[in-house]
Amino acid sequence: MLDKVYQTIQENNLISPSDRVIVALSGGPDSVCLAHILCRLREKLGIKIILAHLNHNLRGKEAEKDAKFVKKFAADFILPLECKKLMNKPANENSGRAMRYKFLKQTAKKYRAAKIAAAHHQDDQVETILSHFLRGAGLSGLSGMRYQNGKIIRPLLDCSREEILSYLEKNNLSYRVDQSNFSLKFTRNKIRLKLLPALKKEYNPQIRKNLLRLSKICRASQEYITEEARALISEHPSFLLLKTWQALPAILKREVLRQMIASGSGDCRDIYAVHLEEAVKMLEAQAGNKKKNLRRDLQIIKKNGKIWVKKTN
Amino acid sequence: MLDKVYQTIQENNLISPSDRVIVALSGGPDSVCLAHILCRLREKLGIKIILAHLNHNLRGKEAEKDAKFVKKFAADFILPLECKKLMNKPANENSGRAMRYKFLKQTAKKYRAAKIAAAHHQDDQVETILSHFLRGAGLSGLSGMRYQNGKIIRPLLDCSREEILSYLEKNNLSYRVDQSNFSLKFTRNKIRLKLLPALKKEYNPQIRKNLLRLSKICRASQEYITEEARALISEHPSFLLLKTWQALPAILKREVLRQMIASGSGDCRDIYAVHLEEAVKMLEAQAGNKKKNLRRDLQIIKKNGKIWVKKTN
Repeated sequence: MLDKVYQTIQENNLISPSDRVIVALSGGPDSVCLAHILCRLREKLGIKIILAHLNHNLRGKEAEKDAKFVKKFAADFILPLECKKLMNKPANENSGRAMRYKFLKQTAKKYRAAKIAAAHHQDDQVETILSHFLRGAGLSGLSGMRYQNGKIIRPLLDCSREEILSYLEKNNLSYRVDQSNFSLKFTRNKIRLKLLPALKKEYNPQIRKNLLRLSKICRASQEYITEEARALISEHPSFLLLKTWQALPAILKREVLRQMIASGSGDCRDIYAVHLEEAVKMLEAQAGNKKKNLRRDLQIIKKNGKIWVKKTN
Repeated sequence: MLDKVYQTIQENNLISPSDRVIVALSGGPDSVCLAHILCRLREKLGIKIILAHLNHNLRGKEAEKDAKFVKKFAADFILPLECKKLMNKPANENSGRAMRYKFLKQTAKKYRAAKIAAAHHQDDQVETILSHFLRGAGLSGLSGMRYQNGKIIRPLLDCSREEILSYLEKNNLSYRVDQSNFSLKFTRNKIRLKLLPALKKEYNPQIRKNLLRLSKICRASQEYITEEARALISEHPSFLLLKTWQALPAILKREVLRQMIASGSGDCRDIYAVHLEEAVKMLEAQAGNKKKNLRRDLQIIKKNGKIWVKKTN
């Protein structure tokens, strides 16, 4: 498994020599495995490791025990550790995740670390793809998580949960178990504990492999389409001729709009497929000049044979 | 609903004036609805309708009753009817489908009909997409059924099962019910009766709409990628330079191979993603000349800096 993770890192250029790497360590099996493997690879990779642990203030005594476990792990392996406890409980899974990433990025800044390693593995990837599928994703949603996304890297993305557990056992490593992982209140747990086993048993024993293959196809398609759209837009930095846009293949029409929105607003947050569909409809219509609000602070404008995106506040 | 079907036909150019159209009539609700609607539209569309009914010889007396029902329908609406009973029962769903299409194509030839109308509707489409997803499809599998595929047209593809049943009720039309539609022995029925309702209830009430949207995105992406690959290949009818191929984006590499196989062999039957993956690996490898069997009668060859596909028998 050590070799496999090393290969993933090399093939995807996840880490450069002399990088400082923050390892997000919850104390669960995945992050313990990741921290241990990166520790064993640190000389070969020529990197420095800093552990980071966030107490979400959601699970009382259990969370205190997690923090204690993480401190002992850091002491055993003589690694610097950054701990933080949230004062206010996050309202839901999403805001919890946002706070975690904020903490990790702050820690990266403090230690001038180039990378933040997250312990997402192949089974997480399968669950992510299925969850995006159910939520109504397009190509990029079905692509799943990337090996690298900004500073975040995912060295375990080619390893299965089974491999991780067997690595922990072989190396006699203990870890903490988060009981909320078994609660069917959370969609992600339902997908893992109910839906995936049912699909495997009743529909296709190969479902896991097939979802991973589909995600690769979607990623490759999306990258190609993104690239083509980018090339087109870079020729027209501030606006696009309506005629040029109208002559594009359907899928490029959407992607070009998505990118115009991203560059016009700095991000694509809260821009959904439904907004793109509405924008496409407006731009394809024969009628004259028009505007469309995409979200409260953003407008797409069609005027005098040109298209552009404008911030409204 | 009449208007909706008319619109689907017009928007997708499914029928031209003076076309003869074979309508596949099983006697079930969908095909009865389709036949009735096309009858009511035939003057407006300027077409002639011929009914065709195949007895698969699988359901004994029930099938005889279906045939009787269909004959009465043809008589009531004064339509020509072509009936056939299979001598040998088909071995499974797939061979049954193959025999049905063979019969429909023969009938089209006999009547010099330009089109064969099938009654697949929006709910069939959703089930098809989900079934392809479970079986491990790529983009074209996730695109689902087309409005038109050769002579086959699907005028009901924008209508839901609910709309069809309400049309039948409003127009006081009777139909036959195939009990095997409720057997959970068949994957398709399990998807319709168990999986889709569970996904809708437990994961996403919008699942149906989302799958249809995803299929449109996949169709548009696939069409774009197909077009780009086709343009590239048409410049190189008999072989491709290895260098040209290697410089392509990942998704075009696959698509170009798929099209080379199709044009080198006449079809892509029994060529699966796994074959393409193996071929890609061989072509990306640094080593020299090489061959790879794609299926028993087909080889992909890399030699002297060129790539081509060869039939081996």
